[in-house]
Amino acid sequence: MAEDKTLRLTRIAEQILARCREIAQCTEVSGQTTRTFLSPPMHDVHKLLRNWMEAASMRVHVDGIGNLHGVYPAQEGASGPRLLIGSHLDTVPNAGAFDGVLGVVLGLGLVEELQGVRLPFAIEVVGFSEEEGVRFGKPFLGSLALLGEMDEELLEYRDKLGVSVLDAVRGFGVDPAGIPGAALGDNGAFGYLEVHIEQGPVLESEGLQIGVVDAIVGQTRLELTFLGQANHAGTTPMALRHDAMAAAAAWMVAVEAYARGRAGLVATVGRVETKPGVGNVVAGEVIATLDLRHADDAVRHEAEQAMLAAAQHAATERGVRVASREMLQQAAVPMDARLSELLAAAAERAGYQARRMVSGAGHDAMIVARKVPAAMLFLRSPGGLSHHPDEDVFVEDVEAAVATGLEFLRGLVDDGRLGREHPTIREGVTDGDA
Amino acid sequence: MAEDKTLRLTRIAEQILARCREIAQCTEVSGQTTRTFLSPPMHDVHKLLRNWMEAASMRVHVDGIGNLHGVYPAQEGASGPRLLIGSHLDTVPNAGAFDGVLGVVLGLGLVEELQGVRLPFAIEVVGFSEEEGVRFGKPFLGSLALLGEMDEELLEYRDKLGVSVLDAVRGFGVDPAGIPGAALGDNGAFGYLEVHIEQGPVLESEGLQIGVVDAIVGQTRLELTFLGQANHAGTTPMALRHDAMAAAAAWMVAVEAYARGRAGLVATVGRVETKPGVGNVVAGEVIATLDLRHADDAVRHEAEQAMLAAAQHAATERGVRVASREMLQQAAVPMDARLSELLAAAAERAGYQARRMVSGAGHDAMIVARKVPAAMLFLRSPGGLSHHPDEDVFVEDVEAAVATGLEFLRGLVDDGRLGREHPTIREGVTDGDA
Repeated sequence: MAEDKTLRLTRIAEQILARCREIAQCTEVSGQTTRTFLSPPMHDVHKLLRNWMEAASMRVHVDGIGNLHGVYPAQEGASGPRLLIGSHLDTVPNAGAFDGVLGVVLGLGLVEELQGVRLPFAIEVVGFSEEEGVRFGKPFLGSLALLGEMDEELLEYRDKLGVSVLDAVRGFGVDPAGIPGAALGDNGAFGYLEVHIEQGPVLESEGLQIGVVDAIVGQTRLELTFLGQANHAGTTPMALRHDAMAAAAAWMVAVEAYARGRAGLVATVGRVETKPGVGNVVAGEVIATLDLRHADDAVRHEAEQAMLAAAQHAATERGVRVASREMLQQAAVPMDARLSELLAAAAERAGYQARRMVSGAGHDAMIVARKVPAAMLFLRSPGGLSHHPDEDVFVEDVEAAVATGLEFLRGLVDDGRLGREHPTIREGVTDGDA
Repeated sequence: MAEDKTLRLTRIAEQILARCREIAQCTEVSGQTTRTFLSPPMHDVHKLLRNWMEAASMRVHVDGIGNLHGVYPAQEGASGPRLLIGSHLDTVPNAGAFDGVLGVVLGLGLVEELQGVRLPFAIEVVGFSEEEGVRFGKPFLGSLALLGEMDEELLEYRDKLGVSVLDAVRGFGVDPAGIPGAALGDNGAFGYLEVHIEQGPVLESEGLQIGVVDAIVGQTRLELTFLGQANHAGTTPMALRHDAMAAAAAWMVAVEAYARGRAGLVATVGRVETKPGVGNVVAGEVIATLDLRHADDAVRHEAEQAMLAAAQHAATERGVRVASREMLQQAAVPMDARLSELLAAAAERAGYQARRMVSGAGHDAMIVARKVPAAMLFLRSPGGLSHHPDEDVFVEDVEAAVATGLEFLRGLVDDGRLGREHPTIREGVTDGDA
């Protein structure tokens, strides 16, 4: 190869971006990118990926829940667990081109860069069929199937048209009898790598290109109802009011101040509804949501208690009652410490500073991590923008991710402990061009 | 009359309440009281009132906008301006029995209590056809016609079915050619008395039965739009947010604190709308209303400026923009000082302590006061409740209002200045039974 290493990285990165954009053309709604779980355009995505994967000597199959798998075999004689690299292929409505898809296409790009050289372990690139939860209101169906956690109840979830998950699988042309077979065997994988856009502003704000995720935050979602008394806005003196909106506002100010004072904590009141919701009537009732996230569950639980106490205080001061309803409690999911270390070291060897960070959003890695040591690499999101047609990613950040990914593969091969745990993996990978 | 004075007052008050409840049966919606401007049940109301009024020797007519007038003539030879006593006969949807109607029925009750004795001035009891603004989104149509202010534009207002005011008048069986004739002559009335339920909690909270209104508050209504940036609730650190809801909440807390610190000022944020209005998305936009009222326009204007500055401050702190739109600016309307004094003195003579207070809501008196010296008497509202089927009034408070009203009539007759201004009015009224 006469090609300069940097030029080569740029070419790979550009191909990855081009492929993401090509996949973005596969859509249920012309003129935008909308591709929900098992929708017809997912067939086109599979066709594109299958062609690229097969050209890279990968064996491709679609499992019982519609996940696409491309397996790049290990070197002759190696039969141990494999490395999974993946993310999801479904999108939110009117999405961008990179959320999810980038991680699959980049995984394929890493395999291609091996140029046929086999590693002591197989690499399986997985394109999950469902992560966003758009069609059935339930996210992570793809990764749940990989973990063997698609139970009867989930299969009976229905979309807005009344189609069940089971019907949708059949309609896509896949035999649902294959769903149990989608599950990883007990010793099927020794690690999972997910490359994903950050979907937030942290890397950009610090002028960094990539990050290694230490944990996916835990979440609390509450719905608070402030019950005061609806009154005439003109005839009710301030001192005689039981203003549900004033109580809710005082609480929101307390929520914001508390969250600002705790590193890594985010708290959001995103939906507020006033009743009767008329300008000249003191609000008798306010419903407000609280979304609370932190990588440390103890910090989150403490914050939840403090915020509920603040709500009680703001309400009591105004003769208002407050009740809260828990909509979600989800524990934080730490990524695998050793794999994350290997990933950070790989970035450093590749010449990049990887920020150690948390993911504020859920990802397939959160599910997969229940059974398989998982690591995540974040790429900077320009403008922090995601779930939007203008969602983007810089070519130089894709270069950084590819270079880091290749070093990560090398690190896995070189890692002594990996060898001890998986005695079939011994021989190092050749340098290739990475 | 052998009847004890107190017993007699109770009997009158009970009859007034019974009549209000009978009128409340006249409704567009069975099972509740809903009687909008010129709706068919208003004919039934007019029939009831006409019968009662004619039995009290009053001459009854319906004017071109549907106001009902019952005139109790002055004593022989007196031809000067008359005293108006009135309020409105229309209701909000699912109303109580007393808002408006009580003032008309109580005016009739005062005339009845004269038992045929004529005063030096005529008394005209007016039941305004429209005050609530429900049907055409424009209140005070009845009193505006009395002032000769029903212009062509108002006549072309249309209700939800597309019926114009003009069509509605015709449909009610009244000739709209009579609308200009509904206007008071220049010297038609020397005073206007409106008896009305408080529709607020002030009298009840102070253990008082009645109040004399010094002024009807001025109003400012604004709509504020906080424009931040919608962001992922999980991936956007607190420090990098432009949270429109947090800015709006901080502003609301400032609004409440400011209003609490200024006597007589009321400020209400009654409607709040979040966009996109999803629990896991930082609000990019919040629309919030501000309703601001005070009897002193200067205080209100100063408050408006302070609250807009507070909005700007709360927004700027969070990198949010804020814009405001003025929906209403309405000056305070003072009641006539002399008539109000006479009314307060009448209450005292009748043995009641009348609270001097402001009206936080608009009333027909606000319109009539533009041409005719006006005074208002408030009755305590149990629970501060109005615009609600449970709206109520205590019989002993109606007694207080009747006794005060009769003393007010006596005071008008006795008032030297009234005599000077209106030379036709000289002779006092006999004691009657009041």
